[in-house]
Amino acid sequence: MSNKSKTAISPTREEDYPEWYQQVIKASDMAEKSPVRGCMVIKPWGYAVWDNIVQGMDRMFRATGVKNAYFPLFIPLSFLEKEAEHVEGFAKECAVVTHHRLEQRGEGLVPAGKLQEPLVVRPTSETIIGDAFSKWIKSYRDLPLLINQWANVVRWEMRTRIFLRTSEFLWQEGHTAHASSREAEARTRQMLEVYADFVENYLAMPVIKGVKTEAETFPGAVETQCIEAMMQDRKALQAGTSHFLGQNFARASGIKFQSREETEEFAWTTSWGSSTRLIGGMIMTHSDDDGLVLPPKIASAHVVLLPIYRKQDDQATVNAYTEKLAARLRDVRYHGGCVEVEIDDRDIGGARGWDWIKKGIPLRVEIGPRDIANDAVFVGRRDMPGSKKQSIPTDQFVAEIGGLLDEIQKGLYQKALAFRKTHTKTISDRDAFYAYFTPKNEKRPEIHGGFAQSPWCGEAVCESRIKEDLSVTIRCIPFDKEPVAGPCIHCGNAALHQVVFAKAY
Amino acid sequence: MSNKSKTAISPTREEDYPEWYQQVIKASDMAEKSPVRGCMVIKPWGYAVWDNIVQGMDRMFRATGVKNAYFPLFIPLSFLEKEAEHVEGFAKECAVVTHHRLEQRGEGLVPAGKLQEPLVVRPTSETIIGDAFSKWIKSYRDLPLLINQWANVVRWEMRTRIFLRTSEFLWQEGHTAHASSREAEARTRQMLEVYADFVENYLAMPVIKGVKTEAETFPGAVETQCIEAMMQDRKALQAGTSHFLGQNFARASGIKFQSREETEEFAWTTSWGSSTRLIGGMIMTHSDDDGLVLPPKIASAHVVLLPIYRKQDDQATVNAYTEKLAARLRDVRYHGGCVEVEIDDRDIGGARGWDWIKKGIPLRVEIGPRDIANDAVFVGRRDMPGSKKQSIPTDQFVAEIGGLLDEIQKGLYQKALAFRKTHTKTISDRDAFYAYFTPKNEKRPEIHGGFAQSPWCGEAVCESRIKEDLSVTIRCIPFDKEPVAGPCIHCGNAALHQVVFAKAY
Repeated sequence: MSNKSKTAISPTREEDYPEWYQQVIKASDMAEKSPVRGCMVIKPWGYAVWDNIVQGMDRMFRATGVKNAYFPLFIPLSFLEKEAEHVEGFAKECAVVTHHRLEQRGEGLVPAGKLQEPLVVRPTSETIIGDAFSKWIKSYRDLPLLINQWANVVRWEMRTRIFLRTSEFLWQEGHTAHASSREAEARTRQMLEVYADFVENYLAMPVIKGVKTEAETFPGAVETQCIEAMMQDRKALQAGTSHFLGQNFARASGIKFQSREETEEFAWTTSWGSSTRLIGGMIMTHSDDDGLVLPPKIASAHVVLLPIYRKQDDQATVNAYTEKLAARLRDVRYHGGCVEVEIDDRDIGGARGWDWIKKGIPLRVEIGPRDIANDAVFVGRRDMPGSKKQSIPTDQFVAEIGGLLDEIQKGLYQKALAFRKTHTKTISDRDAFYAYFTPKNEKRPEIHGGFAQSPWCGEAVCESRIKEDLSVTIRCIPFDKEPVAGPCIHCGNAALHQVVFAKAY
Repeated sequence: MSNKSKTAISPTREEDYPEWYQQVIKASDMAEKSPVRGCMVIKPWGYAVWDNIVQGMDRMFRATGVKNAYFPLFIPLSFLEKEAEHVEGFAKECAVVTHHRLEQRGEGLVPAGKLQEPLVVRPTSETIIGDAFSKWIKSYRDLPLLINQWANVVRWEMRTRIFLRTSEFLWQEGHTAHASSREAEARTRQMLEVYADFVENYLAMPVIKGVKTEAETFPGAVETQCIEAMMQDRKALQAGTSHFLGQNFARASGIKFQSREETEEFAWTTSWGSSTRLIGGMIMTHSDDDGLVLPPKIASAHVVLLPIYRKQDDQATVNAYTEKLAARLRDVRYHGGCVEVEIDDRDIGGARGWDWIKKGIPLRVEIGPRDIANDAVFVGRRDMPGSKKQSIPTDQFVAEIGGLLDEIQKGLYQKALAFRKTHTKTISDRDAFYAYFTPKNEKRPEIHGGFAQSPWCGEAVCESRIKEDLSVTIRCIPFDKEPVAGPCIHCGNAALHQVVFAKAY
């Protein structure tokens, strides 16, 4: 590993991006496949990231007046059927509970106690929460109702990839009801801004905010807004969605209220969600050929202390110095929590440092007798793989660690933003568009241009042809509108919008 | 409601305890039944309590070296079958997933895509976590492994009651593996002490710690330790369990390690759990005939501010004073968080104060023009229903609120402890024992003596006869041993232990 020409992760991003992703997860010990088809086990190093996402995002939700609640895991089949588009969208990927006990028969156990009505394990909770809302809301005084749920959901996937697409995943789903369309639309946008804020400032992933086309709209929604990020293979990842549901689900679930004018109205609802998929996006945005790179604000831990001694005599001194430094660092406040410190005193030589590089911890600190004599520590930064470790006076390191972590956080964001800019192109010519998305090398189909900003006529047929030809979709019609740069990239008719095209996860 | 002879909750505890419990939950708006059989909806006021339980308990777990992870919701049938006693214990109450999609057939949707192997929705995760442990553990260097999971679980219950017994509930389950029996036994006890500490100091519920009899031991465990609390109907509630699993689950799941001596050994494992049931226990311990009473350390909020004005002229002044006070209170640190403040400016008269009494908020603060003139507030305490509200200078109230909340917290614990002492009796005589547990009034079968400390011979047959005769079980063999006060209460043979008998939830 110390050989400079080698990297800790094999294959590299260049060699095989999808396999590199799996290997980064393995090397960082974040998660693994489970014996249950399509389900993952999130290991402590990965779960700590999720925990930090939950804490950070939940604070933001609460600041907008949202309260947490919890609704049943199971949804009666009849509930799912209430909204026609909705059930069609999820019917093909539902885990269905049909029995409520097991019975010994012959050699083994078999399902018994058949349920009168099958229950679906929630793929999302619009219908069951809608039913609750229909009981809770009577008058305009009960509105707006702003509810969020942290939960597991199940969508039976045929091809799965850890964090990005799993049959079970963890997420939050917000559900709100309002007295007017205008207010519900404003809430839809407000929560999209919360996602954008969180993803950019905590996960250090720059995003493009916009509206989905009709073809990509959530089943049953009037409008779906999204944030889209670029991964290092130049593909897009949808990192959060916020749906304006109009009165569709209110009609389906009977969410009615008496207005100020004493008329009976259907409420206007929204829903918005983000999931453990964000972890996959974070990995693919920042990690390198040596493994995971964690943005400090959601890192499982911020700094690892590595005591170093050759002579047995030094052990007590070095360990005592290390413990004292750990205690001082743990007292440093950092973004609503404290600096999280790991100590690794395993006697495994150079492999120890590489383990923490692969795990993506922002700072590695070596503490040996010579450092202690100078009252200094030897600091390595994960975000600068080429740079040399630096000796820093210990007091200075303790005083500056918060600033150093912030600098790393900002640097990761800037690097990702520059990468996206480099691989985003305004394209008005159809041939150039097709060339941009056609891989140069058949063995590495993932390598292509990146994001294209191109004109689109607004017709679903052009959208679907491009999808068939190139596996490229319209990621969004951005809120920050670019001028329409010519006729529709596909049909040549007058264009309505300049949109973002990309291959996507 | 202002009529002093009436209570806010009907029926009262005396009149009908089980129905009183349901009405307290309804009046406090904590939770409700869902349209899904046996599942509950936890509403924001109830979920905030759970959130506080999670935060507080999780801090304690982490302080003992435990890390969080997440494992699949589904357990393949073959996994559950690995431990014979275990599967027998859960087979009768399993939700079973048999299909992975829905298909339109005739009028409606039907389950389709039959699974090769049915999946059980986890009733507990020993087998699936055991499988992961068997891969993670190779050497004694990987031990101890200390993992916790916060998750939902499903046990199909025929008779359900919100928080106390529901088909789906939220819980945590800790799972640890160790290199020696002694170490695993020590961890089993350590986690029981964590539960006792949390339940006594956060939920203000005094508990008895001890060991379950064989009949009450967790399916597959060698020993089950528990904490038992007394409710106001004198019945016991098991508030947390910690299981020493010996090598049973390690053998079933193949959790092996290479010892220091280079031999291959099965690990020694433990598991321990607590759930949303704790909320039910907390309600039944502290609440009164006016509704919920929340211990401050887990209260959804600590204080509600009630601006009061008769003249429209006063509105701006009162509201400004209220907002300023809220901001000052929210800056007060309280047990790792801050004081949580609600403002209720609804124009609904006296019902407003009663709403907050029923919701169990520890402090109610009225703010009117006269109070403002004196720079004082008018404070009502939930834990002292009979007492008059007191005028307190505002600065003093802000300075002392932390102490006041601590005083309320301690008072609730002391009151519950006194109640338990009053209704616990050492009984050595069989007839007295039977009389103690026989209701005096057939219409109110819940009224009986309480806890009995009585001698037991150790035979399962005596235990089961008492259960048949009186619906009374041995809650535990307490760690704090009482002297054996005579022969076995049932058979008259020599007694082995002085145990705690009670009716139980």
